This record gives sequence, C-alpha cells and structure tokens, in this order.
Amino acid sequence: MIKKVVTSTESNWTKQEGLYHHIVISSRIRLARNLAKLPMPAFQDESSAFTVLEKVKKAAETINRQRKEQLYFYQLSELPALERQILLEKHLISPEHREEGPNKGIILSQDESICIMINEEDHLRIQVFMPGLQLDKAWGTADRLDDELESQLEYAFDKQIGYLTCCPTNVGTGLRASVMLHLPALVLTQQVGKVFRSLGQLGFAVRGLYGEGTEAIGNLYQVSNQVTLGKSEAEILQNLTELTGQLVDKEEETRKWLRKEWSAQLKDRVGRALGILQNAAILSSQEALQLISDVKIGMDLGLLSDKQKALLKDVNHSELIVLAQPAFVQRVTGRQLEAAERDQARAELFAQKFGAAQG
Amino acid sequence: MIKKVVTSTESNWTKQEGLYHHIVISSRIRLARNLAKLPMPAFQDESSAFTVLEKVKKAAETINRQRKEQLYFYQLSELPALERQILLEKHLISPEHREEGPNKGIILSQDESICIMINEEDHLRIQVFMPGLQLDKAWGTADRLDDELESQLEYAFDKQIGYLTCCPTNVGTGLRASVMLHLPALVLTQQVGKVFRSLGQLGFAVRGLYGEGTEAIGNLYQVSNQVTLGKSEAEILQNLTELTGQLVDKEEETRKWLRKEWSAQLKDRVGRALGILQNAAILSSQEALQLISDVKIGMDLGLLSDKQKALLKDVNHSELIVLAQPAFVQRVTGRQLEAAERDQARAELFAQKFGAAQG
Repeated sequence: MIKKVVTSTESNWTKQEGLYHHIVISSRIRLARNLAKLPMPAFQDESSAFTVLEKVKKAAETINRQRKEQLYFYQLSELPALERQILLEKHLISPEHREEGPNKGIILSQDESICIMINEEDHLRIQVFMPGLQLDKAWGTADRLDDELESQLEYAFDKQIGYLTCCPTNVGTGLRASVMLHLPALVLTQQVGKVFRSLGQLGFAVRGLYGEGTEAIGNLYQVSNQVTLGKSEAEILQNLTELTGQLVDKEEETRKWLRKEWSAQLKDRVGRALGILQNAAILSSQEALQLISDVKIGMDLGLLSDKQKALLKDVNHSELIVLAQPAFVQRVTGRQLEAAERDQARAELFAQKFGAAQG
Repeated sequence: MIKKVVTSTESNWTKQEGLYHHIVISSRIRLARNLAKLPMPAFQDESSAFTVLEKVKKAAETINRQRKEQLYFYQLSELPALERQILLEKHLISPEHREEGPNKGIILSQDESICIMINEEDHLRIQVFMPGLQLDKAWGTADRLDDELESQLEYAFDKQIGYLTCCPTNVGTGLRASVMLHLPALVLTQQVGKVFRSLGQLGFAVRGLYGEGTEAIGNLYQVSNQVTLGKSEAEILQNLTELTGQLVDKEEETRKWLRKEWSAQLKDRVGRALGILQNAAILSSQEALQLISDVKIGMDLGLLSDKQKALLKDVNHSELIVLAQPAFVQRVTGRQLEAAERDQARAELFAQKFGAAQG
C-alpha cells in the first residue's frame, strides 16, 4: 500500500468535494495523545519508545477487525529517506517525523485521509484530512478513531486538565484543527500581512505549506487554533470554521474586484503561468508552486480559454502541489537527483502533465 | 497594391532564401541621388519639391514600359499616418520620411524589394532589399535601376567627387550598404559591445532596428558602411560582405558554445519564450521582439521539440518582427488603439499565430 502512496500524486481523499474547495484545499484534525505510565517521546529511551510503537501497532491490529477501512502500520526506519520525504510532501507526516529515528511509526488508511504519527512529539498524533472546509466531519472521524484506540490503550489523562501532552499548547483537548487555504488574491493585493496579524491576535496561528517555521509559497497558508486548553472541541471547531468562512469571503471579494479591475493583467498572468509550466525546461519547486497558484486562480475565475481549459481538465490543485515537490520528482524519475537535475526533471513532468508543446 | 503592403506581415522578398539567412535577416543597398539644377530637400520650397516629385514619377512611368517588374508611385501625403508607420515598420521608409509633408513620395515594387524614397534627405534614395547576405546581387539590381532612372533624369554629379548628396558622408558613390543581423548569442554572452566598438574603429556604423538613433531590440542590429567618398562601390560591398561573414562566424561559434555549455538553460529560455508568446494576454512590442529572438535561436539550434517545431512550421522571422510592431497591430485590428489596448491586441495576434492554447 505504501508504494502507491509514495508513487502517486493523488490521495483518494483529495479527489472528493468539500465546501469552498476552490479556496480551502483541505481541513485537518490532529489529536495529540500519550500513553499513560510511559515517558513522553522527549524523555524516552529506545526500549520505551519501542514499547509505545508495539502497543499502538497492536491496538491498530485489534481495531482493524471491526473496521471497514483498514489501517496499515509502517515503521519509518524501514522506509527509504526519499519515501519519508514524500510522506512529508503529502502532509502525512511532520518535518520532525521524517528525520532518522529507530522507533517512529505511522498508521495510514488506504485513501490517506487518516495518518497517525507514532512517537513524534507525542506518542500518538491522530490526523484526519478532508477536502474543503469540513472540520466537523473530520473531527467526527478522528473522534471515533480516538475512541476505538482508547478502547485498546490507556491514555495519559487528567480529569482536571484533560489529555496530557508534551507541549503545553496542546494540553486539554489535545486538538489542533487546521485548514490549508489558497489565497492568491489576498497576496496579490498585499492584504495578507494585515489579515494574518489580526488572526494572531485572535489566537490563530498562520503557517506556510509545511507547518511551523516554513515559508508561504504558492500562496498556500495553513491556519490553525493556537491554544487547546480551556476550550471545548466544539468551540475550537466552530471558531476556526467561522474564521475560515470569513477568510473565504474576503478572498472571494478580492478576486471579484481583481476580475473587474485587473481582468487583462490577471488573464495575462494566468496565461503566462500556463505557458511556462508547459514549456519551461528548468523549473524550481518554488516557481512551480507560484505558477500553479496563478493557473488555479485562472481556473477559479473562468479566465481560461476553452483550449486552456481542455488542457487542465483532469488537473487537481492538491495533485499539482505534490507534483511540484522535490522528493516526488525524484521518485518519478526513479533516482536521487542533484538540485539542477531535479529542476529539469520537474519541468518535464509538468510539460507531460499539461499535454505540452514540449515533447 | 499599397493596401496589400500595409496589411500583410509578409513581403515577398523576405520569403526567398539567401546566404546565412538564419543570422543575416536582410541585405540592403541604398543609393543617394539628387537632380541637377534643383535645390536639395533641405533648401527646397514647395514648388521645387513638387517638381522633383513629378519628374521622378514621370521617369518611373517611362521606364515601366521596359520593365518586367512594375514600379508603383505613391504620394505619402495621400496615405494615412498609420500606413506610413507600417511602411516604416517594414523598413521601406525612414523615420523622417514617415513624417507629414506635402511632396514626399515613394516608388515601390510589388514584392517590396525595391523602394525609392522621393524628397527624403536627398531627392532620391533608391533602396533594394534582399534576404540573407547578398549585397552584390542587391547592388546589381540597384545599379540597373539607377541606370534606368539616369536615362530619364539628370543627376547632380561632379566628375571629380562623384554624386552630390545632402550629407557629406554620402558624397561619392552615394552608396550605403547595410545588413540586418540577428545576434542573440553575442548579446547573451555580452560580447556585442566590444564587437561593435571595434566595428566603429573600422569605419562601420551599428544601429538598432530602425536606423540611426534607435535602440537595439530583439537582438537585431543594422551594420553599414559609414563613408562613401574615396571608395569604389566594389570595395564598399566587399568590405561589408567580409565583415558580415566574420560576424556570422563569431555568432555561430558562440551559439555552438552556448549549445554545448548552457543547453538546458537555453532550452528553458526558448520554451518559456514560446509559452509566453502563445499564452500572454498583454505583450509589449519590445518584449515580443525579445521573445521572438529567443524562439528564433531555439529554431536555429534545433532546441525545439517536434510539437514546438510543428507550431512554428510556417513562421518566418522577418514576418514576426513586423507582427510585433505598433502600427501593424492597429492595422490588423482595424482601428487606432491606446498603448494598453495595443499590447492586448498584439498578444492575441501572437496567440493566433502560434495556434495557441488561448482561444
């Protein structure tokens, strides 16, 4: 199963529909959990880490008997670095979890909508992904899975303060809800800085494509709740859902304004982006993501000609984002590549993808 | 006939072949002649200008009886400004000759390979254009035409110093020979400045696309002899022909080196240029000329894929250069356009030309 995950740009869940899917790439629920009576990962020795890995693996095997959608366990040390990198590029694991380590694991569902990281910052990080804005539904799935696991595992839990986690910001519900947003209009009109500063004041965190400390490229932003203590799950989800609705409205309004006032310039930008994706022979990951963003806003705003639309018929934004990534390109070409070779291989991939003039 | 000249990007002569045609766009011979006993244009009044115009027109009518290829007379004041601008963009007339004036004329052959300017700086400027490097052949044509005209007109001629002209640099043979060169490799490798400085020392002038005082755009350079006095026609032609051969060699060498050392970068540049020409929605004349230059070097060096080649099958460098020009775009769209509209109309023309994805 993992071979398909690391060789296909698609994850089944990204092909489903969801609310505001043209702007909200995905919703993610992440629950931080730790096993009782075992030191948290920061204080683990190898044998207690191994114990955690085995316990969780066994729990997954047990709950699988009752589940329609099966869960698959992988020890990360058994996967090549390139494949771990692809898991990161598909947002299934964090940058930290990708690094070498003997007792790191994941539990994955076939459609990649569920990925549990084992021995990351906490013993378990249960993650559920869904397309568009559907935090409630993703939460429902995560909550049921959490219950199933809790039937097999004893969690570190305090009646007073809730689930115990390594980082104090996760204590309480242990819930982090996040949405991945595509906000090209807010970026183009330079509103994004102001908007995000006010989000910070409201207790939300904004990050780039790969979480904490990463730069925003391709006009993609991850927005999540910052604090989990003292708030119920329902409150957290409602707040983020409302906020996302507001951001979507603001992005939509700005797009309409751009379409009205700067239609020719926008069409030009979109056309050039498509022309370059089709015909470049050297393409960096960062440039590809920017061009993808330009093409996407062209699709969303109906700025494409029929011929251009035909080229993009089967193209999915999430898929293109994965296609632009460094490890994925190497996976497709089947070998390790230097940065310069990667940029050439990536250009070829995009030329193929867009039924390009380039042979 | 003039309607075809100002509505078609093609001139019949540009479709012929010529030596080094991939680098030498065209060869031009220009003979400066003045009629005896009439003041030169700088000292003309309207009536003497009219006399010149009528005399030359009549001479053309007379020699037409003996000619296979007919010559057509036009009084420039009867052509709209836009059409005069197109004659300039096709290099048939000079920037000065385009300006309003009552007694300016041209005599044109159907294939546009002959254009005589009447009452420009001199009474007559006989011009002959040929594709590639064939100054001798163009000179042959110009010389015969000059003899035909001289059989009907009395030229201002001094046995000692030769043909009398308005500007002292033209006195003597009155011959200016020039070649239009496409030198993208010398520009890319920043050799062009040094090369042209040494040409200046050798007595050659280097100018941009539209002659004196114009900037070099699209990597196009006009090289001509600077002095006509004290040199025979044969010497002038031989010197420029030899020099052009050397410039072609240098450009060729540099292209080979670029192809060897920077193949991927060059392919990238060429592909992007094509992608932008196909898909841009706003395209300035200057950018279009640069992109055309990039695409042309890709064609010359075989850097295009089969699909890209197919797109460019019927494309001719001279034709594209004309297509990029401001007036031509307006002629095609059939009305005066603001600069911003022009850039949009031009983008559409190129999208059509390249069978683009844009509809």
